[in-house]
Amino acid sequence: MAEVGSAHQRLRDHLHQTRLLGSISSALYYDQNTVMPAAGAAWRGEQLALLATQLHQRQSSDAYTDLLAAAEAELGPESSEANRRNLALLRLELERQRCLDPTLVAQLAKAQSRGNALWQEARRRNDFPSFAPALTELIALRREQASQLATAESIARSPWETLAQPFEPEISKARLQELFQPLQARIPALIERVNGAAPTPPEAVALPESIQEGLCSQLLDSWGYDPARCQRSRSAHPFSCTVGPDDFRITTRVVEGQPFSAFLATAHEWGHSLYEQGLPRHGDHYFPWPLGEATSMGVHESQSLFWECRVARGQAFAARWQPRFVQALGSDPWGGAHGFWRGLNPLRPGLIRVEADELSYTLHIVLRFALEQALLEEGLPVLELPAAWNRRMVELLGLTPPNDREGCLQDIHWAEGLFGYFPSYALGHLISAQVSETMEAQLGPIESLVASGEEARLRGWLAEQVWPLGRSVTGDQLVERVSGAPLSAEPFLRYLEEKVNRLLDEA
Amino acid sequence: MAEVGSAHQRLRDHLHQTRLLGSISSALYYDQNTVMPAAGAAWRGEQLALLATQLHQRQSSDAYTDLLAAAEAELGPESSEANRRNLALLRLELERQRCLDPTLVAQLAKAQSRGNALWQEARRRNDFPSFAPALTELIALRREQASQLATAESIARSPWETLAQPFEPEISKARLQELFQPLQARIPALIERVNGAAPTPPEAVALPESIQEGLCSQLLDSWGYDPARCQRSRSAHPFSCTVGPDDFRITTRVVEGQPFSAFLATAHEWGHSLYEQGLPRHGDHYFPWPLGEATSMGVHESQSLFWECRVARGQAFAARWQPRFVQALGSDPWGGAHGFWRGLNPLRPGLIRVEADELSYTLHIVLRFALEQALLEEGLPVLELPAAWNRRMVELLGLTPPNDREGCLQDIHWAEGLFGYFPSYALGHLISAQVSETMEAQLGPIESLVASGEEARLRGWLAEQVWPLGRSVTGDQLVERVSGAPLSAEPFLRYLEEKVNRLLDEA
Repeated sequence: MAEVGSAHQRLRDHLHQTRLLGSISSALYYDQNTVMPAAGAAWRGEQLALLATQLHQRQSSDAYTDLLAAAEAELGPESSEANRRNLALLRLELERQRCLDPTLVAQLAKAQSRGNALWQEARRRNDFPSFAPALTELIALRREQASQLATAESIARSPWETLAQPFEPEISKARLQELFQPLQARIPALIERVNGAAPTPPEAVALPESIQEGLCSQLLDSWGYDPARCQRSRSAHPFSCTVGPDDFRITTRVVEGQPFSAFLATAHEWGHSLYEQGLPRHGDHYFPWPLGEATSMGVHESQSLFWECRVARGQAFAARWQPRFVQALGSDPWGGAHGFWRGLNPLRPGLIRVEADELSYTLHIVLRFALEQALLEEGLPVLELPAAWNRRMVELLGLTPPNDREGCLQDIHWAEGLFGYFPSYALGHLISAQVSETMEAQLGPIESLVASGEEARLRGWLAEQVWPLGRSVTGDQLVERVSGAPLSAEPFLRYLEEKVNRLLDEA
Repeated sequence: MAEVGSAHQRLRDHLHQTRLLGSISSALYYDQNTVMPAAGAAWRGEQLALLATQLHQRQSSDAYTDLLAAAEAELGPESSEANRRNLALLRLELERQRCLDPTLVAQLAKAQSRGNALWQEARRRNDFPSFAPALTELIALRREQASQLATAESIARSPWETLAQPFEPEISKARLQELFQPLQARIPALIERVNGAAPTPPEAVALPESIQEGLCSQLLDSWGYDPARCQRSRSAHPFSCTVGPDDFRITTRVVEGQPFSAFLATAHEWGHSLYEQGLPRHGDHYFPWPLGEATSMGVHESQSLFWECRVARGQAFAARWQPRFVQALGSDPWGGAHGFWRGLNPLRPGLIRVEADELSYTLHIVLRFALEQALLEEGLPVLELPAAWNRRMVELLGLTPPNDREGCLQDIHWAEGLFGYFPSYALGHLISAQVSETMEAQLGPIESLVASGEEARLRGWLAEQVWPLGRSVTGDQLVERVSGAPLSAEPFLRYLEEKVNRLLDEA
């Protein structure tokens, strides 16, 4: 077989080293966001910039270019589809890397690290202007990056679209508009129905930190968490990351007065981590090969949202966990299982994306999708971002942020120069809903399985149907492969309408 | 000035990058020993090996060799002594690096990581044989390393001496024998005097973990700890490390039934960290230059032992802290300040080095010094190490370890291939004692200053007299510079005899 020929082997060794370098960055990132003292930020920025430069060199060097060409030359009629796909994805990535000026790569890494540090401080002090110069610099660098990358693209793409490619291969603004339009059209009416029914807002419940920590641990234990392979820590913004093929990390935070925040964030990040842990790792799918990577960020997000929303915010799950919360707290402020379920699903528009319920979540993304285009492509001055944010917030959700901490400073993404990423969160809801319909057609109702504590069967189904696909497909193709139909907003809207009906009926 | 000429500048930039790489390893090491899941060990070993290979390449490449030669050629009559010394130290290090086979460097890094992982497990299960193969490999690799390094040495050195050079520049076995001989000769009689006086052993005090954590925090706060520059975590073995010029880490562990273990370890590691934080950082002493590094590991240890033993185990400190311990615990199991002081100074030989008091500590080192020579130079089979350890333990301290966990598996050093390091711990006691005599001659009795809470004055004196010397001197030279006399065991023995007298008088 040509696949085990010597160029293939050498390429594999090269990629292995590349992945080692990349995972060192992940370890430093984890450290930075969990334990690094604030004064370490500048040096950390230099460390990450050095690694980014090295990574870029490895991924664009003449030696690597020759190696890839040699591996491509080895392809023959007997070569596997997986091998072809791996090489094609590497070729695309190489063309992208070779367009980039190494100076820009280092500048970006430094600006990201600086942005992160300034954002942490600006957020703490609710001081957007102190963060604005860093954001302005990041936007300029990203625009420059998009313009350099555009030369590698086979079709014409806008700057925003170019930057979104690594997260959602083949995505376009038009396709997103098509998917998001029904959400904007139908969700506001649903929100109004819920508001009109005026259910009593659940009391704020003060759940002590140690109890929240304990419940998060119980949840993870019941969902297959293995401390020998995963570490859980605290950070300002919850995230999940992979530091090695057998080394996974998730972080959460406890938010005062929000009894379910850490719990749902744990379910969410664990969903991401399960996906990473289930990606193909053998043969052509070996860790460092593209096929061993996530299909797209939308698919990644569908896995976290499945566990957070479909499972942990479901009625059956609420019925099983309410007694544990009550026992841990020593009282029942929710007034029974239904009130507890209601607490998990406030269905009440709020200011914070990561605290949003399923009903309004995707509208938070619609807002960010528009503002990213405004910042990157339509010349919105950075200092006008807070006002633009607040105006949109009123239009979409009828809410005015009282300060920027609960407005445009709430997310870490832009602080690290991450543009083009937010839509993946909304796609995650759509993909999760569509894949769940297929799962239910094959396994029976998810609610019934959760009621009998059979989450392992849900996990097993995903481990067979979704996780092994890796980058053998795009997000759109994955959905079509699993569900038999192109991705649309319909399953998600059906699911939402049914959930709203059930919550209102039983209120 | 030739010093700011272009070769000098380029050399400085090169060293800066080298230090970035080295500090990435430090960050990974910290992560590995505090939060990394066990299954991550193999990949982490590969990451560290990759960095070690890169570091070795940077420190031995032709480009760097040319750069150093160019900087040396720039030296002229107007060049500073500091510049000359920096270049001389770099030259010595370069000659050492160039002797080493890059394959060996990578093998060692991997073996160290594997050794660490197997040791953690072997120690947990008290299973020395499962760790023996890793240790055997490390010894073989270190012997090979010593033989490669020997070609760079200007004088003939034994393998052990060659490996000890990075920790104690210019040290010899003969000099150590000379310094250690009086300890072996006079300490056993002191131990016997204490045993003869048969003071009641203090009751074991169960101090809950959270209280110990709280007291450690109080201690650090009172000694200038700044969470913006330092992070404190847990690890199996306490250590201190520097991740960047403004990023310091210390770790401790709480040992059940030992109320002072975490407290004294915190004092100890904080002493190391203060020294690192006080090393020269500007001009010729800039972070990446040799003069910005610690004088020797013995001097490093003298700084940790000063705060642990001279200060925290002192009578005045005990008198001030006993009420805080009593208040935190809600009772006084020590029966007053004297009993508390007695508890901090059991003066009772024990099995564990890091829990040993000042009286027997150096004998633990004498044991390791002898066994390292036996393993590296006298052919002691690794599987016979436990028996040899236990035999020596009886000879020196009259104790037999009940298991290897409390015997030859207790320390992390050999598990990471660290040979030639242990004597620095004993040198630290000697240096601390001799430097303290000078400090007292200038500032008055340490006990008086501690009694009035003026530890900041002790810190200020060290910050002026000791920390800025960096590698401008050897350990021996530093002591002579500060105290006016060559290092000897006399000040330490005088201090011990006086302390024993005082403890027995007041018993």
